[in-house]
Formats: sequence, structure tokens, C-alpha cells
Amino acid sequence: MAHTIAVDTGGPVPLVTQIFEAMAEKIDNGDLRGGARLPSVRRLAEQCGVSTLTVSNAYNRLVAQGYLEARRANGYFVSGRPRPMSRQSEPRKLPPRAASVDSLWLLQRVYEDEKAVLRPGCGWLPESLVFADGIKQALTTVAKKPNVAFTRYGNPLGYAPLRRQIQLLLAHRHIDCDAKRIVLTQGASQALDLAARALLQPGDTALVDDPGYCNLFPALWAMGVKMVGVERTPQGPDLYMLELLARQHRPKVFFTNTNLHNPTGTSCSPAVVYRILRLAEECDFHVVEDDFSADLVAETTQSVASLDQLRRVIYIGSFSKSISPTLRVGFLAGNDEVVERVLYHKMAGGLTSSELTEQVAHAILVEGHHRRHLARLCERLTLAQETVCKGLASAGLTIFHRPSGGMFVWAGFGLRTDVVEVAKQAAAKGIMLAPGYLFRPDQQPTPWLRFNVAQADDPRLYRFLDEVSSRHAEE
Amino acid sequence: MAHTIAVDTGGPVPLVTQIFEAMAEKIDNGDLRGGARLPSVRRLAEQCGVSTLTVSNAYNRLVAQGYLEARRANGYFVSGRPRPMSRQSEPRKLPPRAASVDSLWLLQRVYEDEKAVLRPGCGWLPESLVFADGIKQALTTVAKKPNVAFTRYGNPLGYAPLRRQIQLLLAHRHIDCDAKRIVLTQGASQALDLAARALLQPGDTALVDDPGYCNLFPALWAMGVKMVGVERTPQGPDLYMLELLARQHRPKVFFTNTNLHNPTGTSCSPAVVYRILRLAEECDFHVVEDDFSADLVAETTQSVASLDQLRRVIYIGSFSKSISPTLRVGFLAGNDEVVERVLYHKMAGGLTSSELTEQVAHAILVEGHHRRHLARLCERLTLAQETVCKGLASAGLTIFHRPSGGMFVWAGFGLRTDVVEVAKQAAAKGIMLAPGYLFRPDQQPTPWLRFNVAQADDPRLYRFLDEVSSRHAEE
Repeated sequence: MAHTIAVDTGGPVPLVTQIFEAMAEKIDNGDLRGGARLPSVRRLAEQCGVSTLTVSNAYNRLVAQGYLEARRANGYFVSGRPRPMSRQSEPRKLPPRAASVDSLWLLQRVYEDEKAVLRPGCGWLPESLVFADGIKQALTTVAKKPNVAFTRYGNPLGYAPLRRQIQLLLAHRHIDCDAKRIVLTQGASQALDLAARALLQPGDTALVDDPGYCNLFPALWAMGVKMVGVERTPQGPDLYMLELLARQHRPKVFFTNTNLHNPTGTSCSPAVVYRILRLAEECDFHVVEDDFSADLVAETTQSVASLDQLRRVIYIGSFSKSISPTLRVGFLAGNDEVVERVLYHKMAGGLTSSELTEQVAHAILVEGHHRRHLARLCERLTLAQETVCKGLASAGLTIFHRPSGGMFVWAGFGLRTDVVEVAKQAAAKGIMLAPGYLFRPDQQPTPWLRFNVAQADDPRLYRFLDEVSSRHAEE
Repeated sequence: MAHTIAVDTGGPVPLVTQIFEAMAEKIDNGDLRGGARLPSVRRLAEQCGVSTLTVSNAYNRLVAQGYLEARRANGYFVSGRPRPMSRQSEPRKLPPRAASVDSLWLLQRVYEDEKAVLRPGCGWLPESLVFADGIKQALTTVAKKPNVAFTRYGNPLGYAPLRRQIQLLLAHRHIDCDAKRIVLTQGASQALDLAARALLQPGDTALVDDPGYCNLFPALWAMGVKMVGVERTPQGPDLYMLELLARQHRPKVFFTNTNLHNPTGTSCSPAVVYRILRLAEECDFHVVEDDFSADLVAETTQSVASLDQLRRVIYIGSFSKSISPTLRVGFLAGNDEVVERVLYHKMAGGLTSSELTEQVAHAILVEGHHRRHLARLCERLTLAQETVCKGLASAGLTIFHRPSGGMFVWAGFGLRTDVVEVAKQAAAKGIMLAPGYLFRPDQQPTPWLRFNVAQADDPRLYRFLDEVSSRHAEE
């Protein structure tokens, strides 16, 4: 029959589009002539194995584009009139995509995946350690503000009272910075992207931690920046390699985590921090210091920014760990010229950040209970580090370095184990693991995995890891 | 005296830095020797005409970097020990900046400027027309949600219930779009930036409305995209020019506003919308349709997307006018391939958008009073258009086109008047005007100005405009 249609229910093309296109083609070809009656919505739906809504949408689209006429209570007929437009051409091909997007898409699938039972590979805190009560209280506080608090785009730098609060925070970290040199961002991730846009051009080289923060890489790929990885040792970046690569590649920027590094949990000593700055001065590169976990350390932390005072260091922080990632509030501090550039890219990319979330973050910081929350959080993470490292070791894993606190630990089964395969087996059991290649700028294999100690307290994880270890011992 | 310092209080270098550098140089040069006593904080502050805090910060920085020693209750002395590091080198020069940033910086100054008494040039609604009550009520609703609502990064596409609500909204606009093809963004501005990143590469050509949305241009400049302006007529884009430029420049994208265009307030008729799509098909370009003001029109609006059904059209919307810009919630809808690209750039540039603001927007949309708010808003804007157009005409201005509603109207004094000069005179009187060149992709002069009818009801504005008209009549 002229109106038989084969639909592909598993394919990427929406069903409505498939039916629309198939019918339109039949009409264009003359297989269906003007005046011909089409099967009823219900009948075609049954024939194609799709919902009546799908067919009805396809018919409506055919009507809208002049292929069909709907006659009241009588059904759909091929239009006898000339159609107002010829069939639409296929849109042009999009530009080729930047290199691999594996790490990002893993992240994304993870975010979407509600089925995973255990998430020791994820990058966020469990519900019990997020300051949800603080947010709820702050929402109530903010809801009582006068209307004018909810009417403007806000200051391009971000909500001024929150920036002043961050100025105090930075002073505690021995970083002297006027609130005018602090830009509020959508988490540390946007801050990294903006710093990259301000400091780099396509074709430039940047040094990055290897392994390092996985969401930085897609941002640099998309910009056409060449990445060179600096191996991370238990003491911080490998200083010998840092110097060698800096002299060889003349990078413009080095992106690094100073404290409780993602993914290894390692921190830099004062001497390492000093040496990073000296190399930056000698080889003339900027340091983008993502200190996302400064709040997870009970005592004052080391930072390159505290030595340099934001001359060539761009300092980044976030409230995603210390309050909640739901807020999407982070910040960047730098010298006047950097801040001006960052602001340009921030505004060009989406105008101001949300003053609503910034007001909520501010209410939480000034309200008084946040310090108590942080103290408890640090304590819980320190305990979790001990328990999880012990558990991983018992399950036969090697620990790269035992962190003093924070969320992350880097561990592996040894060189003979394919951790990507292990992660696949784990996924089949509802356990989301994070194989180490995701954290490498070149996405090359590594025998390590990142564990989130705050999400790794379930015995089923250790039973699974035990099984992997015994299997590999037998081989 | 060896420690006399000349500071430049009007310059771009922070005062603390100036004092720090001058002192460090004197010590490096040997003008100040080890053991020498420095003037007290108060005294140097008086000498330099700066605050004691500034000097104290500079001294602290000199101490931190080993130049000085602070002796308790005795003052500051040049350190006798070798400093732990040599003087820091100047960081390397940043890459050259993209072309003019005038329009963006104007916007920014405007956001920062609390002194302006009247803002007929601004792009946002006055407090009285923003749905602040809705936000406050929604905050209270959201504050009652269980803790889990505040603990996650959220779905990369954005908060699912809000996307489903937008799907319904689009269905009313005759755009059939699954919620999986809707990406939530930080306002329409981020949506435009992401669409540009998804569709364009450096060196590509894009057509834009001329005049057009001023925040789109910095985004395209920063990307190295070549912009070609299509003149906007009272009926929409000049179709003759659109065809000519499309054939000449082979653009990949045309960015346009269909309804109540920013800045002219013009809308496209069905025939114009149809012709845009036909040209897009013939010349194979994408259309990025920023329909930011669809909610400001009482009846159903025209759109290229409703004809094309998101094959080659990327459709953008926002809640900045219909709820409040404080939320920073907008959206983008497109075909599967476009959405995948957009998502890549969204995640790379800052991970997920804030689920907190998206929950607030959702609560407002489902709560029921929003429709009433919109009806009132449309009515008020329609009335304001009438009054303001009448007022501008009485003050001697020519109206480009009398819009049926929305916020913007495009008006001018005629070719002989320099509207940039007029805007400067207005600024001196606390009146913020928006001269037309800001809305041109090449920033070339134009005799027009954009007026925001919702911010143009003050008699002082019309007195000022009268004065300008009479002065120019005399000349």
C-alpha cells in the first residue's frame, strides 16, 4: 500500500520526523495523489507500532506545511492545492567536533543516570554532607527581602556583598584582594573556562596536571589550546618535569590544584608552591590555581596565590563542596587586567551570573552555622579517608597517596589490570567507578582509579573490588 | 629622601602595588639599605596622599616577600637577610583583545551605575513589572522541598520538570519539541553564545540583524567570527539584502529576533518568516531565532521555528522579561545534533546550570498566577508603547516603527544630530540613553536611539529631549 511506512523506533531520528518525512516523500513522489485519504491516526499508529500522539503530530506537521488537509470528522486528505513551500532541504553539516569528549560525556551520563546504586566514582558529596539545611534556611531569609532584590541583572562582577565576604575568606588564606578583583562565576568550572579565554588563544600551549580535573580538558580542547600534562607526584606537580616542559613548550599558563588535588588527593608543600611560582616567573607563565577544596582543610592551606598576591596567579574557588553544587557559585580573583578580560568573556557568554543564587550563598556565609558545618564536614572526610584507604588496601588495591582529608583518593590494582574493563563490570552491577584515563589530558590508559571517599562506604563496593583482585591474582 | 614615593591615584595600577613596587625597587637598587628604618604607616600615607590601609597592605606584602621586617612596636625596617626570592618579574602580556567592546562595557557600566536617575536606555523592566512576588512565593515553595533537591549538580540539560513545562510552552507556539531537545541556559545570552559555539568556527561568517542585540556581538568577536549585518526594516530583516548577502558571503548562521525585535520593536509577518526559512534552505544556513519577547505578545507569535520544526532553526527563549533577569534562566531548542554540541560547550564552560534557579522558575510557571502576571505585563507595555511613542513624537523625534507592544522603540532626531553627544549630555543629567551605534555589528554611527518604553515615563526625560530638539532646530 502506498501509505505503508517503516519506522525505526531505536534510531536517532524522532518518530514524528520519520513519519512526516516518509509521508512527505510519498506525496512529493506522487505515490500519494491529491485528494487521497490517509489512514486514520489510530490505524497508522497501530501499523507503525507508535503512539497515536506521534502520528497526530506528524499529520499536524504535514497539515502545517501544506501536504495534508484536515477535514472535520472526516480524516486527513492529501492536499490538492500546490504546497506553499517545497520540501525542506537537509541543513548543512556542522563543523567537525573537537577531539575526544569521553570524560565529559561520562560525567554527563553519570549525572543523568539515576539507576546507579553506588557512585564511588562521582565527584560530588552525598546528600548527608551537603549543606541543604543551610540552603533551605537561606531561601527563607532571601524570600523576605524587598522586591527590588529580585528585579535586576545585577553587577557584572557578581553580588557585591558576597564578593566582600569572599575578600574576607581570601584574607584568611593570606591573599590580599580587593572585592573589585573578585568575579563570581558558575562554579569553579566556569572560572577555569573564563581564565582560559582571558589568557589563551587558539594554538597556545597550556600545562595541566596529569592526572587532573577532567572538566578542564574539554574546555581547552574546544578552544584549540594544546595541552601538555605535568605528572602529579604525591608531593604535587613533578617539579623537574614542570621546569623541563616549561622551557621546552613555553606555555602561557599552568593549571593546577594546590590542595587535595582532584583526582589524587595530593597537596603541595610550601617549598613546592614556592618553586611553582619561581618557575612561573623564570619561564613567564601564568598559574591558574584552582583551590576548590581549600574549605575541606581544617587549617590554613598553602597556595601559590598567597606568595604571588595575584600578580601572575589567577586564584579560583568554589562553594560546590562547602555548600552545594546546586548553587553553581564559584569565584575567580586576579589582577586588574585579567579581571577585565574575564569580565568581557563572562558578559559575552551569558551576561551576569544569577544574583539569586549569590544572595543565597551570601546568606549562608554570614548566617553563622556554616563554620560549624565545615568543621563537621572536614572531620567526616578525614575519617572517611582513613576508613576507605584501609578498605581499598584490604581489597588488594595500591593507594597512590593517603590524603589527609578531602574527597578523593587515587588507587589501583596494578599494571596488569584493565581498569576500563573493571569499570564496565562495575557499571553492570550498578556501581559507578571512575577509571583514571578520564583524568588525563591525552586520555591515555592508566592503571589508577579515582575514589570519592564520601561515596565509598557500601560493603557491596568492597565485595566487588575483592572479586576483581582475586580474579587477577588467579590469572 | 630615599623613601619618597610618587603615586598615581588616577591610574590603572592599584595603589598598594604602586607602593610595593616603588619600595621594592629602592631596596633592589640599594637606595634603601639593610637595617634602614622606613617611615611609619601613617606618615607615608600622609606623604603619598593615600589611606593608612593601603600603606599597611603594601608593607605587609613587602614583609611577606622578605623585603622588610616588622619589629613589634618599633616599625618597619629593610631586611638584612637575603630575600627568599628575587623580585617578581612582570607577568607576560595577555593576548590582544578582540575588537571594540564598547557595547558590552556600556552595558556593564550601566549595571554598575547606581547614580543614574532615569534609565530609558536600559534593557530591563522596572521593578513594578518584574514578577518579584512570584519569585518570593516560589522561594518559599522551593524551601520546603526535601534536602535531596539541594544536593546535586543536576541534569546537564537542566531541571527536567522545567524542560517539560517549556515543551508545553513551545507546543502553544506550534513548535513540536521533545524535552530532550531543550537545554536550559543562563538566560538567552548564554543560549546565543552556545549556539554560536555549536555552529561556528573562527573565520566563519554569520549574518546578524543590523541593528541587533548588542550582547551577541562581543560573543562573536571573541570567537573570531566575521559578522555581516542585515538591515532591519519595519517589516523585519530586509529580504533583498538577506538574499544578496547570503549568496555573497555563504554564511553558516543568521541570528535574528522575530518578534518585538531588540532594539527596533519590529516584528516579522508570516510571509517574511516563510521567506527567511526558504532562503536558509536555498543558501544552506542555520537560523538562530532569539524569541526573547514571545511572552510579551498577547496572541500567538510568528516564528521560523514553527515552520521548520527545529530542523535548521535553533530556537531561543528567556524568562528574563516574563519573570525576572535575576533568575538567569533561558533555554535553547534544536535538533539532536545541535543539542549534543550545545551540551558539550555548556558542560565545558561551567558544567550544569543552577537547578536552584530552575526550580524557582518551574514553581512560578506551574503555580498559576504567572499567566495573570503576563496578561497585565502585555497590557502595561502596550499602553506604554502608545504613551511613549506619542511623547517622543511630541518632543520632535522620528519613530522608526510604532511597535504593537514589548519594551523597545527606535527613535531619532534626524541625520544632523549626533546622538552619542546627546547621550553624553543626558548622562550628565543622570539620564541613561542608548545611542544606536551600540546595536550595530560594526559599531558605526546611526542617528537612532533605543528607548525602553517601560522606563520612559518621567517628564524630565521629555524636557531634556525637547531641549535637544529646540537646540537643533535653531542651529
